[in-house]
Amino acid sequence: MDIKEMSREERVDQLYNRIDELLARGESRKAQVILQALLPVDQAEIFSDLPEDEQKLVLEDLPPTATADLLEKLEDEEVAEVAKWIPSEQLADILDEMEPDEAADLLGDLPPAKATDILQLMEDREEISPLLLHADETAGGLMTSEYMALRQHMWAQAVLDAIREWAPEHEYLYYFVADKTNKLVGVVSLNQIIKANPKAEVETFMDRQVISAPVNADQEDCARLMSRYDLTVLPVVDEQDQLIGVITIDDIVDVLEEEATEDIQRLGGSAPLEKPYLLTSAWHITRSRVGWLLMLFISGMFTTNVLQYFETTLGKMVALSFFVPLLIGTGGNAGSQTTSTIIRALGVGEVEKKDALKVLWHEVQVGLLLGLLVAIAGFIRAWLFNGDLAFSLTIASATGAIVFWATSVGSLLPLFAAAIGADPALVSGPLMSTLVDATGLFIYLTVAQWILGL
Amino acid sequence: MDIKEMSREERVDQLYNRIDELLARGESRKAQVILQALLPVDQAEIFSDLPEDEQKLVLEDLPPTATADLLEKLEDEEVAEVAKWIPSEQLADILDEMEPDEAADLLGDLPPAKATDILQLMEDREEISPLLLHADETAGGLMTSEYMALRQHMWAQAVLDAIREWAPEHEYLYYFVADKTNKLVGVVSLNQIIKANPKAEVETFMDRQVISAPVNADQEDCARLMSRYDLTVLPVVDEQDQLIGVITIDDIVDVLEEEATEDIQRLGGSAPLEKPYLLTSAWHITRSRVGWLLMLFISGMFTTNVLQYFETTLGKMVALSFFVPLLIGTGGNAGSQTTSTIIRALGVGEVEKKDALKVLWHEVQVGLLLGLLVAIAGFIRAWLFNGDLAFSLTIASATGAIVFWATSVGSLLPLFAAAIGADPALVSGPLMSTLVDATGLFIYLTVAQWILGL
Repeated sequence: MDIKEMSREERVDQLYNRIDELLARGESRKAQVILQALLPVDQAEIFSDLPEDEQKLVLEDLPPTATADLLEKLEDEEVAEVAKWIPSEQLADILDEMEPDEAADLLGDLPPAKATDILQLMEDREEISPLLLHADETAGGLMTSEYMALRQHMWAQAVLDAIREWAPEHEYLYYFVADKTNKLVGVVSLNQIIKANPKAEVETFMDRQVISAPVNADQEDCARLMSRYDLTVLPVVDEQDQLIGVITIDDIVDVLEEEATEDIQRLGGSAPLEKPYLLTSAWHITRSRVGWLLMLFISGMFTTNVLQYFETTLGKMVALSFFVPLLIGTGGNAGSQTTSTIIRALGVGEVEKKDALKVLWHEVQVGLLLGLLVAIAGFIRAWLFNGDLAFSLTIASATGAIVFWATSVGSLLPLFAAAIGADPALVSGPLMSTLVDATGLFIYLTVAQWILGL
Repeated sequence: MDIKEMSREERVDQLYNRIDELLARGESRKAQVILQALLPVDQAEIFSDLPEDEQKLVLEDLPPTATADLLEKLEDEEVAEVAKWIPSEQLADILDEMEPDEAADLLGDLPPAKATDILQLMEDREEISPLLLHADETAGGLMTSEYMALRQHMWAQAVLDAIREWAPEHEYLYYFVADKTNKLVGVVSLNQIIKANPKAEVETFMDRQVISAPVNADQEDCARLMSRYDLTVLPVVDEQDQLIGVITIDDIVDVLEEEATEDIQRLGGSAPLEKPYLLTSAWHITRSRVGWLLMLFISGMFTTNVLQYFETTLGKMVALSFFVPLLIGTGGNAGSQTTSTIIRALGVGEVEKKDALKVLWHEVQVGLLLGLLVAIAGFIRAWLFNGDLAFSLTIASATGAIVFWATSVGSLLPLFAAAIGADPALVSGPLMSTLVDATGLFIYLTVAQWILGL
């Protein structure tokens, strides 16, 4: 955190205390004035920390526009909480002032009966209703219906006049051009419009190469498109290529953060949480983890069988069992290093399915090098343990072989998942480790039988 | 991947083959025409897959502007490769056509002697030189010097005229206002300028609440600021609050992806790679992993000591050792689930250091629930193994205790790392597992001694 950022956080904390104090004393008007001088996202941070009775005081008599700005910046779950105690008429007025995509998201989080009631009370319901049709994680779920489509034959001057008239919640640098049937045919920037001859038709200076997303495209694909082509706004089209909405970059930044969070949680071996951590109950968190933990427990049970299978060998030399956790732990670690790297490379598109052989060859080399280096460490450790050459060679060879094996398998598992259409992040580090545990033990004790002649 | 995206990829593949064929036949002019009809990022994808002799044919006689567009979209390492065989004079012309921040990045990747030579040959060297002073991962390293600062007393009409004249590589929606001493005092959007009375002074309609980043701010903090306040361009200021550059959202999207990649690689237990996976040599990848793997090997060596310490207990009941991998594996998995969730929550700011007690209390509850559920699975497994009640109770209690312990420790480790100013992602899943292995064994065998009276 830099100084600037720290002082902002401290300032917000200070203001929170001041506002809390004023509200407790019943001076809610003063508190509102202080709060409204802040940027909406800072207002939201303070608001969400206030107790419910003080939240009610803050929203009392606040104009719908100001309330809309504040609610837009709260977490979805928090808005749903607040929406419970705001009367329907008032909530409808507030929603009318919100960006259509945010309003649609909020309606989606309310109980269906309440959402229908409120929609009926809204002025902008025709703008919002179509947005409610699309799944949350698709282009349609992300897009807003607040955009202005230009026609090919409009004069630049007419476009400028239209932009002057229009007062959207969000400001745009790019405007899309549609033909008579509303088919997307081009894009112009506000700069191009300003620079154009006032009587030039849009068609003469628009860019015909326009990237768009189909309405049912996955939100992650939209994010990749916008990131690949450095777009700040992405038009969304239906099956007839007709323009039906736009996605703005701020929503895409949120999607990228969300997707990376899901990948990281899956890599840790749990189902992704839908809400921010501290807003998720312990019971919900447990549910997101217990399935994987039990599945890993069950697949880990094979280790018991492998050890039982080698009971005689282990009985002949009990020292072998002392190295079991170290060897399988090292195999698991080597495997996790590989899977996490490959999963991310697949996620950001650095690696594709067709690169499987290249990746395998890369990891085979890495596995050989790593195996050799860790084998040396294994030899030293075993030699310090009992100074027996054959035993030390056993530990060294087993360590090397297990690291090589885990590294190679670790590269193939995520690619295999991608090939069968599964999310590579599901083949997480923990699953990898658990699979390598049983095979690693088998390698270890087989090597021991050979070298030590047990 | 949606249909639109797939067909784009297939088209690019097809075009690659066509261009490759034309170049092989020596028809480089035709190949250039096809290539130039594409968007720069698609041009770059095709170009980077071509063999070096064909790359030379493509760039031959290509105007510097076109070459600049193409090189800007290549990976930094690829540009550095290409720059090796382009003559310095030609490279200087190309760099003059690039966005200043991209040109500065490229110069930074060249050998210092060559970079100095080229800088001397450039027209825009005064625009680029200041950018070379700042560390890559700071606001200064990300910013571009291509921006237009407005003065408070300019008329709206004069601003519009200036924007019409100006032809930057990148188009902007927001313009920053600085006073006579170049101190940042406000921000206006292009929409506000268009809507304003032509004779209104900028001061009368600008927004005085402007978020900025200090030049030495970490790039991740800049990303958080832009994401928090939904900015598409962030002004960068020096210690005197003077405007010295701007950061655009497309660079921030790249930063967010890069930081998430680093977190994921660290979570997998390796040092982050600086280049895309397939462009990194096997030797480099090995180096990024071997340090951690050896460190984990060394800390894992304690498991051997713990088992040796309990040699008598294990000797009395060899079946206990069969469950060692399963129990410590489960502990490691439970710990990884927690660390990965907490690390990410810290990374996106959902959790802060001051929330440590809340987090611990959350995870203590989760640990108790998970421990109970997995203990039941442990009991069943042990009962199926030998049908002995005391033995099954031992395995069940040890499993529950280890899961509870790993979950609680897993929540504290990342918070502890954050508290001492270290990167929480360094306390990765593998480190967590390795630490829990030794303590888990100790818990297991102590429980066994109590219950089984060994």
